[in-house]
Amino acid sequence: MTQTLFNLPMTVRDYECDMQGIVNNAVYQNYLEHARHEFLLSKGLDFSELTSRGVIVVVIRAELDYKQPLRSGDSFLVSVATRQVSRLKLTFDQQIRKQPDGELMLEAQITATSLNARNRPYFPEELKVLL
Amino acid sequence: MTQTLFNLPMTVRDYECDMQGIVNNAVYQNYLEHARHEFLLSKGLDFSELTSRGVIVVVIRAELDYKQPLRSGDSFLVSVATRQVSRLKLTFDQQIRKQPDGELMLEAQITATSLNARNRPYFPEELKVLL
Amino acid sequence: MTQTLFNLPMTVRDYECDMQGIVNNAVYQNYLEHARHEFLLSKGLDFSELTSRGVIVVVIRAELDYKQPLRSGDSFLVSVATRQVSRLKLTFDQQIRKQPDGELMLEAQITATSLNARNRPYFPEELKVLL
Amino acid sequence: MTQTLFNLPMTVRDYECDMQGIVNNAVYQNYLEHARHEFLLSKGLDFSELTSRGVIVVVIRAELDYKQPLRSGDSFLVSVATRQVSRLKLTFDQQIRKQPDGELMLEAQITATSLNARNRPYFPEELKVLL
Repeated sequence: MTQTLFNLPMTVRDYECDMQGIVNNAVYQNYLEHARHEFLLSKGLDFSELTSRGVIVVVIRAELDYKQPLRSGDSFLVSVATRQVSRLKLTFDQQIRKQPDGELMLEAQITATSLNARNRPYFPEELKVLL
Repeated sequence: MTQTLFNLPMTVRDYECDMQGIVNNAVYQNYLEHARHEFLLSKGLDFSELTSRGVIVVVIRAELDYKQPLRSGDSFLVSVATRQVSRLKLTFDQQIRKQPDGELMLEAQITATSLNARNRPYFPEELKVLL
Repeated sequence: MTQTLFNLPMTVRDYECDMQGIVNNAVYQNYLEHARHEFLLSKGLDFSELTSRGVIVVVIRAELDYKQPLRSGDSFLVSVATRQVSRLKLTFDQQIRKQPDGELMLEAQITATSLNARNRPYFPEELKVLL
Repeated sequence: MTQTLFNLPMTVRDYECDMQGIVNNAVYQNYLEHARHEFLLSKGLDFSELTSRGVIVVVIRAELDYKQPLRSGDSFLVSVATRQVSRLKLTFDQQIRKQPDGELMLEAQITATSLNARNRPYFPEELKVLL
């Protein structure tokens, strides 16, 4: 249904692993966010610059399915696809696949919106390039 | 349906806030995990000790609904309730409520299972105390 | 020489431990920063509010001596003492001591200054309350 | 005196920035650790595998001089050089330089040793390849 628009290669860093010797659950959200922001950049949108201009993009829902754990030394691809799910909401469909075999490690749907100066949701014109 | 079994009071630390001046999305998973592990402790189960004995409890699915952002200086409660969702899976229903007013900031369902030495899911007898 | 002005009780969170089963080196800087910011608050200075007013307090040097590692479940005190080391620089002498026995786990000297709008060091009048 | 042996190119991730809009102080220790572990790998030593074999390499002292802050979007090189400072201690001299201009952002000396099964410092034969 959705088409992968972007892939970011990354590598596990040892400080991201916890006492079980695997990447801690919360760290996957870091990976996913970083890939989304790099995807934005590839579309000419700089998250930091958006923030300083008062365009506040926020995550309102995250669903993550942990399939297999990443471990020290693993290389992986984080993919990004997008879907407009309502007038004001955008969902990022993301996967993490270990390299080089492509094994699916995590699947996620991250839904975001924007807040205007009065903290009300809106969908800024300039984000339409993400779709 | 589920009954809150445990509440952990916490406070935002400034390094947990990102360039938007709010707690970063991934950090809420840290809060939730810490509350779950303190809940386990309150039931006589030590996550670190379980891990070193080879009882590997893993999150297989996380759903998080971000309602309102936490900010520098905020105090909050992280609640834990549990539900057995299948023979091998346990879901933690968790909420984060700002103090002192109790405003709902985040709602989450975190589903976990255990892996045995051959990396197969099972439900260790000793985890039954969580239900 | 310097006198402890402030003590913050904290507890290790499991996600702060790495694959060695001990608190990761970088996390101690999180502990130290959090204790400094709570110390500021106790003196009526809110780091977040200072930042939003354009008072940028930055660390320019950190020295950390790791004596013993903190582990899952450990409770500890983070102490703060201060010293003016030059016209523009303030050093925080900090220790981390495990509770209840008081064993010294880490000793640190963290030196900070402030930057004005033109990115030049200065020492804001309002920080004098820290000394 | 010491000669750079290794350079790791990295990029700031937005979640590493704090409310000041710059990379948080503690994160630089993550960068430095990751570069050291990649340096070890380049010498045939896998930190994770060392750990699981019971070769515990620990940092005992860290000195960091923060020169200029890294910001969202910055690319940088983390360098590693080594020095044996005593029979049992190894110091990593590290720098972080922004790319492409090479501006010095941070300078650090990280001193490490190894602990044997009885928690006593020793210098494993296999680490000699780092010098």
